Amino acid sequence: MNTSIVMRVEFNKQKGLFAEIAGEIGQVGGDIVAMDVIRAGKETTIRDITVSIHEASVLQITEAVKGLQGVKLINVSDSTFLAHLGGKIEIQPKMPVKNRDDLSKVYTPGVARVCMAIRDNPSSVYALTIKRNTVAVVTDGTAVLGLGDIGPEAALPVMEGKAMLFKQMAGVDAFPICLATQDTEEIIRTVKLLAPGFGGINLEDISSPRCFEIEKRLKQEMDIPVFHDDQHGTAVVLMAGLFNALKIVGKLTSDIRVVVTGIGAAGVSIVKMLLVAGVTDIIAVDREGALCRTQTYGNPMWTWVAQQTNPDLREGALSDVIGGADVFIGVSRKGVLKVEDIRHMAEEPIVFAMANPEPEIDPELAEPYVRVLATGRSDYPNQINNVLCFPGIFRGALDCRARTINEEMKLAAAYAIASVVGDDERNEQYIIPSVFNDKVVPAVRKAVVEAAIATSVARRIPPEYR
Amino acid sequence: MNTSIVMRVEFNKQKGLFAEIAGEIGQVGGDIVAMDVIRAGKETTIRDITVSIHEASVLQITEAVKGLQGVKLINVSDSTFLAHLGGKIEIQPKMPVKNRDDLSKVYTPGVARVCMAIRDNPSSVYALTIKRNTVAVVTDGTAVLGLGDIGPEAALPVMEGKAMLFKQMAGVDAFPICLATQDTEEIIRTVKLLAPGFGGINLEDISSPRCFEIEKRLKQEMDIPVFHDDQHGTAVVLMAGLFNALKIVGKLTSDIRVVVTGIGAAGVSIVKMLLVAGVTDIIAVDREGALCRTQTYGNPMWTWVAQQTNPDLREGALSDVIGGADVFIGVSRKGVLKVEDIRHMAEEPIVFAMANPEPEIDPELAEPYVRVLATGRSDYPNQINNVLCFPGIFRGALDCRARTINEEMKLAAAYAIASVVGDDERNEQYIIPSVFNDKVVPAVRKAVVEAAIATSVARRIPPEYR
Repeated sequence: MNTSIVMRVEFNKQKGLFAEIAGEIGQVGGDIVAMDVIRAGKETTIRDITVSIHEASVLQITEAVKGLQGVKLINVSDSTFLAHLGGKIEIQPKMPVKNRDDLSKVYTPGVARVCMAIRDNPSSVYALTIKRNTVAVVTDGTAVLGLGDIGPEAALPVMEGKAMLFKQMAGVDAFPICLATQDTEEIIRTVKLLAPGFGGINLEDISSPRCFEIEKRLKQEMDIPVFHDDQHGTAVVLMAGLFNALKIVGKLTSDIRVVVTGIGAAGVSIVKMLLVAGVTDIIAVDREGALCRTQTYGNPMWTWVAQQTNPDLREGALSDVIGGADVFIGVSRKGVLKVEDIRHMAEEPIVFAMANPEPEIDPELAEPYVRVLATGRSDYPNQINNVLCFPGIFRGALDCRARTINEEMKLAAAYAIASVVGDDERNEQYIIPSVFNDKVVPAVRKAVVEAAIATSVARRIPPEYR
Repeated sequence: MNTSIVMRVEFNKQKGLFAEIAGEIGQVGGDIVAMDVIRAGKETTIRDITVSIHEASVLQITEAVKGLQGVKLINVSDSTFLAHLGGKIEIQPKMPVKNRDDLSKVYTPGVARVCMAIRDNPSSVYALTIKRNTVAVVTDGTAVLGLGDIGPEAALPVMEGKAMLFKQMAGVDAFPICLATQDTEEIIRTVKLLAPGFGGINLEDISSPRCFEIEKRLKQEMDIPVFHDDQHGTAVVLMAGLFNALKIVGKLTSDIRVVVTGIGAAGVSIVKMLLVAGVTDIIAVDREGALCRTQTYGNPMWTWVAQQTNPDLREGALSDVIGGADVFIGVSRKGVLKVEDIRHMAEEPIVFAMANPEPEIDPELAEPYVRVLATGRSDYPNQINNVLCFPGIFRGALDCRARTINEEMKLAAAYAIASVVGDDERNEQYIIPSVFNDKVVPAVRKAVVEAAIATSVARRIPPEYR
């Protein structure tokens, strides 16, 4: 994705240096979209050059311009960094406190009666406070995007971005909680201690396998929904894409063989959802090859997955087990899948290559051999983006005051996302709606509320169902 | 302070019942300010009666109307409760995420470069995230207003109100953190774990003596400012009032004798600030009488206070030690101070009777005998309200990225608040500005920043001082 940077440069205008600068910019793929003269001296000039360039090339371009003899790079204003100055979210009062009368309503002495009402009737905390609409976005900064363990402070911009999307897409108030610990028990305890003010917990970017224990325990020990987005967000959106892809090739979930590579946070959740959706022939592959119940593994989740999958006890590397598979699902890393592997798949292969930032196979290479291809990237069709899931799933869970987010609710969310792509619209290039499609959140919300009511985890029936 | 309630009542209109209702309302001090007929049947009628009434009498009035024969109270809409529905604050994105370009700036992939910039240069978290402007309002719900230990959920409306005031008065983003534990060590640990995302910690409504240990340890172990508002907010505003009161009576801080009753969270902080301000003759009184260094106490803070005060080793109850005192400062409870006590004070007595909701002495009784009287109530002159302190003190601390909030900064804040009352305005009825005086926050901020720079706890020099 391109960004826009403004480079303020000073150079001797008589030496044709601008052409050199333009040349360097062009060489790394930058597009000069504007130029302003800031100061023009007799010999030297200062100019602001606005360049549209791929995010990944920003560093390269500034280094290149710095390296030019006779050119001084005074400053770089980068629109991404500018957008982050001072943070991306703020706390706003819902009403102004203009005078003494307002003050005594929202603060002392009036607030005392509201406090006592909650003390006397604990469930009224949902009616009378922010708890009803507020989600904590909790991380320890150990598995941030593709960046790994960068710490809680460095993770904060991601959590703020998530809070923006929660609000903008679904009206959910989300607040970042970045924890200065990586200890499983301490994270569990801290989240439980924070819970009184929150209606839900979105776990984010916590590394595997700790994330499994943390989520499992919090789900057991708390009465508000807990959702590790890295696991389930990806799985829900993938399932939505898979349902639509299967319609295109005319296959049933009960008939397909699916190979999943990368059995980490997302991979485990994907396997679980495939099982719930009725897929029986799944082969899970990680660094040690196909997981098989005949073996035991250091990672207890692998052992669990091995017991649920691989009915024919296949063994070996991905290339040994991919033959005849209808669907490939990758949440692993660049280069894992080869053209040769796709050629051994069943007819009309479906490939989800979702490794970030580089997919398991270059989409250009895969394209000629697949029927349906999806990635995690926005510059190819069929982006599997968990922004499609988390705003609507929490909107639904909060609106029916769900005790938890269960498998049925996740599956309902996946069907809802898939349904936004109409029968007349669906094709190989369009199996999943855009993150900016405004039908997604209402559809997911409705499906999640109905599934929560059906499975008796809703503690409130929203008005439209009464 | 009055509030407005709307009572929907159904009654037989032929029996003159409205007069009875109006009579009951008048009897508890309610004022009928509007009446609307909602439905008029042949015999019965439904009406909305809007009543202005003191907060404290709302329950009484509804019970009275319910008790009337032939009158059915259908519903009470109470403007205080209405103002709390769904909570009083929300999270807002600072910019909209309208399209793919916005999304890749504030979320993936653009945000990755911002994360890495923070990882590589940790202090840039202040420039690139909400940390710079965000304060956690942390409570365990054990000492909420005058209500005591009502629990973290029931405390949330107070914390939300505080967050509103932080934003409205000083532009500070404050978020409530209500903890489900009363364990001192666990509270300390939790706050430390949360710290990465916050630029400051406002401790609130945590009961004494645990609040002392929690604040002390957090100040020692964290590099962001920690401020227990119940202790220091009250002390700072009281000191502001005291400075102006002393100008009125023409006495010096070094010459006065001060009696303080109620040696809890606020009382200890008041004693400390009096000492820092140069008051040498202080007598601290609690349930066991005047604290004296000849004794030892179960509460370690009492022992500390006893060692710093009472130079003449006076003993006995308040009435035994009040004789000749220039200033009475009460943060204890209703009825502690008698008219007789004031009559034994030195000439031109100054009385701060700040117990909530009822002062140590009825202001009407005290008035004839004092030169200057201040309370915690808004319906008498000279309200000592910590809303005058916390927004400005955190605004200043955040703006200079102070490591802590020290005694010098608090004293500077007190002088700043006092200075907002001009020499030509100051009189017995006006020693302290209104909480809605918009000169207060800028004055406090400036004083706090300058004191932080002078005492080397500032880590950033705000632009106007560069």
